[in-house]
Amino acid sequence: MAAFVRRADLDFLLFDWLDAEGLTGRARFADHGRETFAAALDTAEAIAARHFQPHNRKADIEEPRLENGRVVVVPEAKAALDAFREAGFFAMEAAPEAGGMALPHLVAQACFGVFDAANIATASYPLLTIAAANLIESFGSDDQKRRYLPAMRAGRFFGTMALTEPQAGSSLGDVRTTATPAGDGTWRIKGGKIFISGGEHELSDNIVHLVLCRIAGAPPGPKGLSLMLVSKYAVGDDGSLGRRNDVALGGLIHKMGWRGTTSTVLNFGERDACVAELVGEPGRGLAQMFQMMNEARIGVGLGAAMLGHAGYLAALDYARTRPQGRPADAKDVTRPQVAIVEHADVRRMLLAQKAYSEGAMALCLYAARLVDDSRTLPDADARAHAHRLLDVLTPIVKAWPAEWCLEANKLAIQVHGGYGFTREYPVEQFYRDNRLNPIHEGTNGIQALDLLGRKVTMQDGAALADLLARIDATAARAAAEPALQDMAGALDAAARRLDRVTQAARAAMAGGRAGAALANASAYLDLAGHTVVAWLWLDQTLAALRLPDGPLPRGKRAACRWFFRWELPKCAHWADLVEQLDGSVGETDPDWL
Amino acid sequence: MAAFVRRADLDFLLFDWLDAEGLTGRARFADHGRETFAAALDTAEAIAARHFQPHNRKADIEEPRLENGRVVVVPEAKAALDAFREAGFFAMEAAPEAGGMALPHLVAQACFGVFDAANIATASYPLLTIAAANLIESFGSDDQKRRYLPAMRAGRFFGTMALTEPQAGSSLGDVRTTATPAGDGTWRIKGGKIFISGGEHELSDNIVHLVLCRIAGAPPGPKGLSLMLVSKYAVGDDGSLGRRNDVALGGLIHKMGWRGTTSTVLNFGERDACVAELVGEPGRGLAQMFQMMNEARIGVGLGAAMLGHAGYLAALDYARTRPQGRPADAKDVTRPQVAIVEHADVRRMLLAQKAYSEGAMALCLYAARLVDDSRTLPDADARAHAHRLLDVLTPIVKAWPAEWCLEANKLAIQVHGGYGFTREYPVEQFYRDNRLNPIHEGTNGIQALDLLGRKVTMQDGAALADLLARIDATAARAAAEPALQDMAGALDAAARRLDRVTQAARAAMAGGRAGAALANASAYLDLAGHTVVAWLWLDQTLAALRLPDGPLPRGKRAACRWFFRWELPKCAHWADLVEQLDGSVGETDPDWL
Repeated sequence: MAAFVRRADLDFLLFDWLDAEGLTGRARFADHGRETFAAALDTAEAIAARHFQPHNRKADIEEPRLENGRVVVVPEAKAALDAFREAGFFAMEAAPEAGGMALPHLVAQACFGVFDAANIATASYPLLTIAAANLIESFGSDDQKRRYLPAMRAGRFFGTMALTEPQAGSSLGDVRTTATPAGDGTWRIKGGKIFISGGEHELSDNIVHLVLCRIAGAPPGPKGLSLMLVSKYAVGDDGSLGRRNDVALGGLIHKMGWRGTTSTVLNFGERDACVAELVGEPGRGLAQMFQMMNEARIGVGLGAAMLGHAGYLAALDYARTRPQGRPADAKDVTRPQVAIVEHADVRRMLLAQKAYSEGAMALCLYAARLVDDSRTLPDADARAHAHRLLDVLTPIVKAWPAEWCLEANKLAIQVHGGYGFTREYPVEQFYRDNRLNPIHEGTNGIQALDLLGRKVTMQDGAALADLLARIDATAARAAAEPALQDMAGALDAAARRLDRVTQAARAAMAGGRAGAALANASAYLDLAGHTVVAWLWLDQTLAALRLPDGPLPRGKRAACRWFFRWELPKCAHWADLVEQLDGSVGETDPDWL
Repeated sequence: MAAFVRRADLDFLLFDWLDAEGLTGRARFADHGRETFAAALDTAEAIAARHFQPHNRKADIEEPRLENGRVVVVPEAKAALDAFREAGFFAMEAAPEAGGMALPHLVAQACFGVFDAANIATASYPLLTIAAANLIESFGSDDQKRRYLPAMRAGRFFGTMALTEPQAGSSLGDVRTTATPAGDGTWRIKGGKIFISGGEHELSDNIVHLVLCRIAGAPPGPKGLSLMLVSKYAVGDDGSLGRRNDVALGGLIHKMGWRGTTSTVLNFGERDACVAELVGEPGRGLAQMFQMMNEARIGVGLGAAMLGHAGYLAALDYARTRPQGRPADAKDVTRPQVAIVEHADVRRMLLAQKAYSEGAMALCLYAARLVDDSRTLPDADARAHAHRLLDVLTPIVKAWPAEWCLEANKLAIQVHGGYGFTREYPVEQFYRDNRLNPIHEGTNGIQALDLLGRKVTMQDGAALADLLARIDATAARAAAEPALQDMAGALDAAARRLDRVTQAARAAMAGGRAGAALANASAYLDLAGHTVVAWLWLDQTLAALRLPDGPLPRGKRAACRWFFRWELPKCAHWADLVEQLDGSVGETDPDWL
């Protein structure tokens, strides 16, 4: 069995590239040092290897099922989550006084990535729980914080995000679940939700649902939405659990992959007795929920990246040990077969996986570092700058890994040949699991509209300008390195092109042709994503140049070069489509399909 | 439930584009007419709808299993194959005197495609049986033909191709299964095979394995291979079945998709009593087997195309009936939601699926027509010409649909959003089933080497010259149509570029740089594939121009235009990589990965 994570890659990204150690100069992280960061990663790796990875396949085969009205999950998942809880990972980023480790988001995300790579389905329970707790911390009342947060940070209560309804997925403004005041400060809600991950199970003492709904009489559309907290069991002032709330499991959803996470249909208020608490302000539900969604979007990107990484490592291990065939230009049949890694096309598929997965990991960890910067940089302007950059990058962080690490997993299967298609090897499961990532937390099509229709135009394009300035800085540094000069030039050209294309699209949108411009939003997302990842590859490679010579820096340079030769040139075509307001989609009548 | 096949598309390709009716002018098909062709398609559609499609999901869930040493397959598969048999489809192309329908290959493939779309796993049994029968017809002795062919053409005996061994998949020259003479004209073989589709089951009275093996003492490598026939049960002179042969099921293989087809490990000669008959000449095994493999490769391409088609139809049906959201530039939340087909990005994904799947269907049926031409054109030179063109197209026919219709199935899931990831909708199964196609019958990497390393250089490039001449002819006809002029120019430019790139690669290979040229063979395959499919799209669209105006010809033109705008431009990048002998793969040391 190949390792599911290569620690040297994570260490390089954290310590040699993103200067995790430098964060310890900030007050919030002052008690930390490289040793404590490394210790957290060591613990994550040990728990993931011992408790998460071993049941990854089993939880896929024995997916959650209903038995006498109860949801049964493989027992190994509970044992894994207990170990995760006992090690304090539910409170990785919480303050020490709240029982937390006070890790920077950067390091916490790296730790989380280790669990993703080992078993993304079981890791999803804490992902949602931590995001839900963060939301309560941001918008909940003091009373809510007191009653729910300690238990969630301790991993005794799990959380969900209950948004989607059968008629309202991408279009959340059409949510119909309704809340009415009960007269005692609580609310009663009624409605059905679907695709709620972790919506029912017995892995935790309680489940805290954060439910998007509409207060009776509120206006239609997104502005009428509020956020309600629905606890599976009533929680008393002393934190004790009371009676079961009126939220019922409507059914389990059976998926292609990611099977270990229960996916549920939930019915709220079937008996008109679903007690709910308002979180934050009425009518601000969607805006508040966006905090959780943005966090979840970065989590989706990281999960996709780590599945790509795990698949890459499996394929690399297979390619190095599997003998088959002889070099294309030396076919002496009396000689022994060579390991398939010697075949150019296999090496191409490995390089592609490396470039996609390590590019995606770099992207997600870069975003995590921006989260830290937006929270802890001493200067307010600098914090705002980091926040704005994070904002414009978020759709890319969500969509790019989902798209290209799915492609990486496809190639991991291909490297394995017929064996890759069997359930004896792990790669087919990674591929099935990863197929969800372009869909959930806002489809990649939604991300494309968010990027082109909002993020690159907001504040008169300030976020894009920030991004381009960072790209330019990297290109300038690379231009001073003889080995990287050609790539510095290519990156600079790509950035200029992205800028021009964006201006053209903005002009079209401002000139009443928003429909025509947004019709090619997915090409714009591809263009921006590839440009950003090329930038981060070159930036990583600059960091690698400072290391002593060896396989890691050489591998970084080779994958960077591959990306610049095989991937970055694709941008020209995407740029053309957007710039020309290509109408081949928009002008096609649905009846002709 | 959406239809799994759209008959109008098949009819257009057969009758409006490929002139199936014109084939009735040849002696072999003189008894046919459009009505008999249509009747065959009607029957295929009726049987597929009644017997194949309904158990497609069930056979996926209840995959073949071992019970008391017997392989149990869902009973619906047997019923479906009985219906297929009774309708005479095992002998679609056989002469009437052999109980056949004497259909042209073109029409037979279209019929077969209907079954592929309905249930590719169950359709695989006849696919392999027909190919095995054709091999025996070509190379078997009169005695073998007499004893096996009628039963195979009647569907009472099924066939397999038993090539792969654990240490010899892509590298068939390393096959170790050994045959020794028994002294009575028969042979005894010993060895293990893996991934043998249909290797064991009780769907037919007998199974005829065509086994690639090495006669004891034969030279190593491909030239030492011979082809042996191993019948599960001895077949007497009168066709009666005798005792069980010494071929044992070593195990069933559990796959990600395509689960309804048994995939087996077979052990030949565990008791040193596996009786085999030599087929054709000793040492010609691989060359002979290539007939079956080439046929299977076209079958793989067609299967991939039809899975793409079925997924497209499901996604189109969903997109037309699923309300969600409002247009990006008209978001009045008080208006009802629109069908998602109205959203540009959904329409893009549908157009892509249409372009990929109908492009792939066109490619496969064009190849089928070439099979007919190579067999039945009156002029020997013209037959040779068709054969050569088929030869050069075969790697593309296998690989292109496998790659791009898998992509189509990925998009079909995406159109369905979260529902697409559930097992309640058919598209996730199409995606899993289609994932096999880039792997089996020679991985797409092997096809790329075959195309660049052999097919386009053979006979001093004559096959490529033939291909380019046909492309030029289409471009010239399109240039005369005002609506298609721009695409005619683009196709002409693409053909010129393909020619130049090929010459550059050939020069490199001739100049001792074969390794460097072949390292980018996959980019060459992409380049050639996209150029060929663009050609066939334009050629289809020319045919569509002759039809009365309506959704079908308009849809053809829209998909053609989309392909020329969104896909054909990708060729420039692939061409650069090949032309420049890009070394980013070849120069990467495996240790750096």
